[in-house]
Amino acid sequence: MGDKVKVKFLPFEREVEVEKGRNLLDIAMDVGIHINASCGGAGSCGKCKVKVKGKVESKKSPKIQDWEWDEGWRLACQTTVQGDVEVFIPVESQIEKSFLKKEIEAEVHVLSAKTLRELVKGWEIDPAVYKKYVELPPPTLDDNLADLERVIRELKKEGVDKVTSPDYNVIRKMPRLLRDADWKVTTTLVSLRSGFQKLINIEKGNTEERNYSIVIDLGTTTIFGQLLNLRKCKVEEVPSCEEGAILAEASDYNAQISYGEDVITRIIYSQRPGGLQRLQEVVVNTINGIIDELLSMTGIERDEISHMVIAGNTTMTQLFLGVDPKYIREEPYVPTAVFFPPVRAKDVGINLGEHVYIYVFPCVASYVGGDIVAGVLGTGIFQRDEITLFLDIGTNGEIVLGNKDWLVCDACSAGPAFEGGTIKYGMRATRGAIEKVLIDPFTYEPTIMTIGRAKPRGICGSGMIDALAEMLKAKIIDQNGKINRDLPTDRIRPVKGSENQYEYVLAWAPQTAIGRDISITEVDIENLMRTKAAIYAGCKILVDKVGLTFDAVEKVIIAGGFGKHIHLENAILIGLLPELPYEKFMFVGNSCLLGTKLLSFSKKLMEEAERIASMMTHIELSADRSFYDEFVAALFLPHTNFDYFPNTVRELEAYWGRIEQAKRRSA
Amino acid sequence: MGDKVKVKFLPFEREVEVEKGRNLLDIAMDVGIHINASCGGAGSCGKCKVKVKGKVESKKSPKIQDWEWDEGWRLACQTTVQGDVEVFIPVESQIEKSFLKKEIEAEVHVLSAKTLRELVKGWEIDPAVYKKYVELPPPTLDDNLADLERVIRELKKEGVDKVTSPDYNVIRKMPRLLRDADWKVTTTLVSLRSGFQKLINIEKGNTEERNYSIVIDLGTTTIFGQLLNLRKCKVEEVPSCEEGAILAEASDYNAQISYGEDVITRIIYSQRPGGLQRLQEVVVNTINGIIDELLSMTGIERDEISHMVIAGNTTMTQLFLGVDPKYIREEPYVPTAVFFPPVRAKDVGINLGEHVYIYVFPCVASYVGGDIVAGVLGTGIFQRDEITLFLDIGTNGEIVLGNKDWLVCDACSAGPAFEGGTIKYGMRATRGAIEKVLIDPFTYEPTIMTIGRAKPRGICGSGMIDALAEMLKAKIIDQNGKINRDLPTDRIRPVKGSENQYEYVLAWAPQTAIGRDISITEVDIENLMRTKAAIYAGCKILVDKVGLTFDAVEKVIIAGGFGKHIHLENAILIGLLPELPYEKFMFVGNSCLLGTKLLSFSKKLMEEAERIASMMTHIELSADRSFYDEFVAALFLPHTNFDYFPNTVRELEAYWGRIEQAKRRSA
Repeated sequence: MGDKVKVKFLPFEREVEVEKGRNLLDIAMDVGIHINASCGGAGSCGKCKVKVKGKVESKKSPKIQDWEWDEGWRLACQTTVQGDVEVFIPVESQIEKSFLKKEIEAEVHVLSAKTLRELVKGWEIDPAVYKKYVELPPPTLDDNLADLERVIRELKKEGVDKVTSPDYNVIRKMPRLLRDADWKVTTTLVSLRSGFQKLINIEKGNTEERNYSIVIDLGTTTIFGQLLNLRKCKVEEVPSCEEGAILAEASDYNAQISYGEDVITRIIYSQRPGGLQRLQEVVVNTINGIIDELLSMTGIERDEISHMVIAGNTTMTQLFLGVDPKYIREEPYVPTAVFFPPVRAKDVGINLGEHVYIYVFPCVASYVGGDIVAGVLGTGIFQRDEITLFLDIGTNGEIVLGNKDWLVCDACSAGPAFEGGTIKYGMRATRGAIEKVLIDPFTYEPTIMTIGRAKPRGICGSGMIDALAEMLKAKIIDQNGKINRDLPTDRIRPVKGSENQYEYVLAWAPQTAIGRDISITEVDIENLMRTKAAIYAGCKILVDKVGLTFDAVEKVIIAGGFGKHIHLENAILIGLLPELPYEKFMFVGNSCLLGTKLLSFSKKLMEEAERIASMMTHIELSADRSFYDEFVAALFLPHTNFDYFPNTVRELEAYWGRIEQAKRRSA
Repeated sequence: MGDKVKVKFLPFEREVEVEKGRNLLDIAMDVGIHINASCGGAGSCGKCKVKVKGKVESKKSPKIQDWEWDEGWRLACQTTVQGDVEVFIPVESQIEKSFLKKEIEAEVHVLSAKTLRELVKGWEIDPAVYKKYVELPPPTLDDNLADLERVIRELKKEGVDKVTSPDYNVIRKMPRLLRDADWKVTTTLVSLRSGFQKLINIEKGNTEERNYSIVIDLGTTTIFGQLLNLRKCKVEEVPSCEEGAILAEASDYNAQISYGEDVITRIIYSQRPGGLQRLQEVVVNTINGIIDELLSMTGIERDEISHMVIAGNTTMTQLFLGVDPKYIREEPYVPTAVFFPPVRAKDVGINLGEHVYIYVFPCVASYVGGDIVAGVLGTGIFQRDEITLFLDIGTNGEIVLGNKDWLVCDACSAGPAFEGGTIKYGMRATRGAIEKVLIDPFTYEPTIMTIGRAKPRGICGSGMIDALAEMLKAKIIDQNGKINRDLPTDRIRPVKGSENQYEYVLAWAPQTAIGRDISITEVDIENLMRTKAAIYAGCKILVDKVGLTFDAVEKVIIAGGFGKHIHLENAILIGLLPELPYEKFMFVGNSCLLGTKLLSFSKKLMEEAERIASMMTHIELSADRSFYDEFVAALFLPHTNFDYFPNTVRELEAYWGRIEQAKRRSA
């Protein structure tokens, strides 16, 4: 965590404390100040001009005249705060000014992704796959032990006991390699559950310091990979240890998408002749592409990767392994296996060294997969007494409730809306995705912020939550999600080619990277509402089943590919999350990657992963009528039952009242 | 063991007790009666005509007239004894008669191969690889456990605990197979050392009773295979258990022979580009051919083979596994490994089911391989208190001395003479091989007996021992192995094309299956003498090294592909074996197969195999000057130092004396 600085926004007299180095537009949006920036922070629209006093760093822009620069005018989106700063915001109307002055009193709750170190305690980087350098005495007539047994004897001297069954690729390369290396070699070993150490590789010279792994979050829509440095270090003592260990991250759409958007259509495709093989090949190709990217980003050699960990939902896991998923889809929804043995990378076509085994995260049931087990592991739920509600919102919504002693879970087909799927301009949380939206309730003009402050290309999950909430607050949509067609703004218009449907334009073509207007349509809104309703219903069922209420939940952990930050009030406002005290919430981003990482880092946690999978009780929603009822009840903003969201509804109505008041005052 | 019957040979009045059903020519040869049969027992020469009284079975031959038949004349080679019998042998001269009458008083010692049951105690057929039939409850919504975990749960109910990591081929075929089989399936499991049970196969229906293995003796010259039935049974209680378990046996020359006769030339070939791969492929082809033959002999399906065990010398083992043997040949003679992990059959090209793993016998050193470890296991040395000398005479001679507490071993490059290699008409102990030879010291005419009583095709190990001893006794050769060129017989003649060298003809072309004369040349004799000298020297060194003398040896076990029987007196006479009381000797034939079989049958003995390999102390002869001295000293019949063979030398001289006497009498 960096130093804190104070930022004071004038004329509203609102002061906030933020991390040094943060972007000024970003800060303003969090506070709720409309600046109408429409280029996502790319610096091209020039609309976020503010006057600053204090220490900032800023890029000069052609939108700022020299005399303006001298007076302290800057583009907020191009500026980072480096000390305490006063920021003067030019406000166009008195209504806005007085309205905002009142509004921005409220504290904002932005949830940003946590690191493993914050989530899971008591572990160190001490991977199951490790290297050990040995210098062997060359054989003589008096000591003509075989090569392999010579290596094993030396490892034993060095404290590595119970070395067992090497792979044949090690045995085959051993005779020449030992002699070429002048008997100085580095062995790669895996700590097995049984206490044995399996010798999986041998290299010339001392490569102990170069031991890497790749972890993969195998999503239905998106696949994420990270390249990790497995050098031992104490995470508790060396805070930078974990961060330093993540050397690169890359992602791509799962190429299986061409064969079906969701797991069901993929399972159907897999039943065609050659379908299973095809799906297996394309997902392996995607992963191989990600591996190539990770290697080229870091300059690490392919042979230096010693280990791989993968987690995905049950269907993705089976397809990756070439195991027919047919019966996942058919009642009674039975996967082929939930505990998978490690698989050799080359046996499934993964382009890594012959010695690399892939650890496959165990699953729980047909619709609660290894990604969720990884999430429970990576978020530390399995360690804590607190009752935690864990939501992983990907293509499906998977929900877990429990603590270190018990865990229940369910899965609802939420749809991939928050990952960018089924949304017209939806996209993954990558560069150019609109991640924050603020809408002026008087002018209906949006302020948007993109990832990487690039020109917008689309909108990601956190942007959608904001957009939905802000449209509701500005009454651009009603509580059923229908767009108000009578508002005085050209941003609301019929969708070209389907005139019954309306849309709201978030960014005009000249300001976008795609050369087209970026909008949110009524169909998008319907999809988002179905998704949020399914997730809420999934949570509600779980809490009901164990005889609790949401009040008993002590912590809510949200995971998913939303983007870096979630605006918590907005997520509750749209009814995606239950109304609970803000401090109970935590956002972890990609929890699956957290878990895969943890497993690659720490051999101690391998058993935990299996314990978690074994102890999770799965509740089958497809056999549950009450789920459908809960789902339908949640198809409203925030919910048809206002009793579930008492404060939210009260505040929303108060907000609307203040807007009306301000409008009446100005009229 | 069958019933015994009495056979009395007239006019010599010699009575022997033999097993009912034995061949009459065979019995006569054991007793030392020359009949001059020259077709090997095929019934074609008609020379073994004898007159019998008593119960026999005999094939009628055109060589016997009807009136002769009625009088009781039979071809000895076509006759088996079924009750007490008197046999009248027509003798051509009085010399012979009186000489023989004296000679055949002696008891003969024919060592015939022992079975596992006789050699190794306290085991039962309880293989590491076994089958278990289960009937699973089909899944329901209330019990939708994954397929694999359902199988594991049911196995646990049936008492099979700790089932672990199945192979992916099992997982992949599971979903459809379980449903096609209506949830009634047979699992194949392997008991691992760790106590875990690895699931390696799953089949429809109940196939528990069909569980087979293949064991392979991977020789440099010859490869033997057996197909075993792994059905559990108690060997001690059911004496036919072991015999019933060996369903077929097949063998073939190791096709690597085209690339070199011995391990050294093969290692040299393996260093050529593609050489290692080529040698690996051809030996796998040979083994695949043997497997095909075993399957077609028994009608057992390829997929019913669950297991394979292989043992070979260190070079053969490494070549089979595709592990470069280069350094086996170079000082200080280091193999790549001595303990090899099980290897998947398909990974080395062995044409068996995907689920089959090959257990590779551990080796001891570069020139003491898994075949010897298998031999020590299969002969029960590791169980006994008695100090045992174990000789395995194959392409090399490997010798072990010790008991259940200690074992020392060495290896001498004896050459493949007794396996049929380097001998002009040498052949393996298969149908048509001359396995017994008796030479008339007056006429120099041989009586020969072949395996299968077929026309002779060549001569195998036991035949060579006999031939060498009989030639010595008849003074056809001297104690240096040189042929006496002055004897009045056309069987002694120069070798065509190399006039300096002489040969002795064992069978004339019209009586052979190859249409050529079968002879033993002086070069053959030299090779045999080098082989026997190396083996004797190897034994002597071992006894010397541990500070013992041969007298301390309580048991001598001889293994090798000699044929079914070894004439012990002859083996000692030529100095192949040390002169020790006859009752100490035992012949086991292919001891390597015995060991591989034992391992396939009994999971308890797997650990014994590794214990044996670990406890064997290897003495490197190539670094040992005294070995060369002992070798040279042994290049004489029986040995240059008569003190080592006092009785043998005395008896030989007495025998010669009696011949001289008889000759003088008749002159």
